[in-house]
Amino acid sequence: MPNSVPNIVIHRLPFYLRALEMMAENGQVVTSSQELGDRLGISSAQIRKDLSHFGEFGKQGTGYEVDYLRQQLRRILKIEALWGIAIVGAGDLGHALVNYAGFRERNFLVETVFDMDPKKVGTPIGSLKVEDQSQMLQRLKELDIKIAIIAVPARNAQTVAELLIEGGVRAILNYAPITLNVPDEVCIEYIDPVIALQSMTYYLERESMEQKRAVSE
Amino acid sequence: MPNSVPNIVIHRLPFYLRALEMMAENGQVVTSSQELGDRLGISSAQIRKDLSHFGEFGKQGTGYEVDYLRQQLRRILKIEALWGIAIVGAGDLGHALVNYAGFRERNFLVETVFDMDPKKVGTPIGSLKVEDQSQMLQRLKELDIKIAIIAVPARNAQTVAELLIEGGVRAILNYAPITLNVPDEVCIEYIDPVIALQSMTYYLERESMEQKRAVSE
Repeated sequence: MPNSVPNIVIHRLPFYLRALEMMAENGQVVTSSQELGDRLGISSAQIRKDLSHFGEFGKQGTGYEVDYLRQQLRRILKIEALWGIAIVGAGDLGHALVNYAGFRERNFLVETVFDMDPKKVGTPIGSLKVEDQSQMLQRLKELDIKIAIIAVPARNAQTVAELLIEGGVRAILNYAPITLNVPDEVCIEYIDPVIALQSMTYYLERESMEQKRAVSE
Repeated sequence: MPNSVPNIVIHRLPFYLRALEMMAENGQVVTSSQELGDRLGISSAQIRKDLSHFGEFGKQGTGYEVDYLRQQLRRILKIEALWGIAIVGAGDLGHALVNYAGFRERNFLVETVFDMDPKKVGTPIGSLKVEDQSQMLQRLKELDIKIAIIAVPARNAQTVAELLIEGGVRAILNYAPITLNVPDEVCIEYIDPVIALQSMTYYLERESMEQKRAVSE
């Protein structure tokens, strides 16, 4: 019953997986909910509870086998095999995304990149050529792409999202600094660097730029 | 006693703030933990518990005043006034970050950008000129910068992080796909698009590229 698992639990699984991948890289064979929790700042009870939604992965007292749990999480998250993705927007960010090595390493393959600017269409980025956004609907269907990344300016993002969904996309990662309206059956996630910055400033000693300037003036 | 608040609570506050900012933009005056929870996929009890770490912000039955709670969260997160940030790496991602409008809107100001490539040093990005990374230590101290974003290749990221910390940086947002070792007193956050993708594939119907190809071949 996958739908009975809370969304917030699903969102923690990739972090468990990343920690396990790092352990595996370092040759570690066994871990515990305590160790995973310490690494991730999550209680060991929460980790055991999260994993219990999907079965029995460890034994009381002996912990988890790193490689087994890693494989199970990959299976649960459905990332054992390649997923194709489309990127919309061939600006600086689009270039950076097409060239990002972290996708291919973790079974995501950038299959195509679109832009609406005629000057960009046809230009190469890595091994791809920028495709014409006016052909996007047809191309998404041809490639049967379910996952797309929006890297266009905020003002165009909603239109792009609607086109992607019409083309069959069911999961959108949005870099544009705007909240998008999508139907319930479409997954959407946001990449927002400011959210990450805001949780760090809490820990910084408060001496704002204005205060500094007031002192130095 | 700020240090007694769990890290995971601090990490949820920016999401509460973002939801409140959106409500304020739409002219909404009052909200509830229930409404916030529905928007964010977090239980209303969790939201009330998180906020109770910092005081009493709403009344039983009448909910929260959007503008007041928003201001309080800004104060708690110490983001009422501008923070200067430095970006390291003037590649595609560095360009995108310097030009990202979402920083300035939310009180972060990109004050400088560094690169180690002599061909990039001196070139303009927006209103900035790329500075020489060999001068970074001195420049960070001159500008008294506490927050930096790493946008360099993975192989250089650890060296850059160490230089930033030596220059006085206390909060690092890392885009390089590598885990960095930093002292306990330094905050570090990661931007990893794959983590976001992995929590969406769970919800997609599983028909991997290999399966599709096997069918079409």
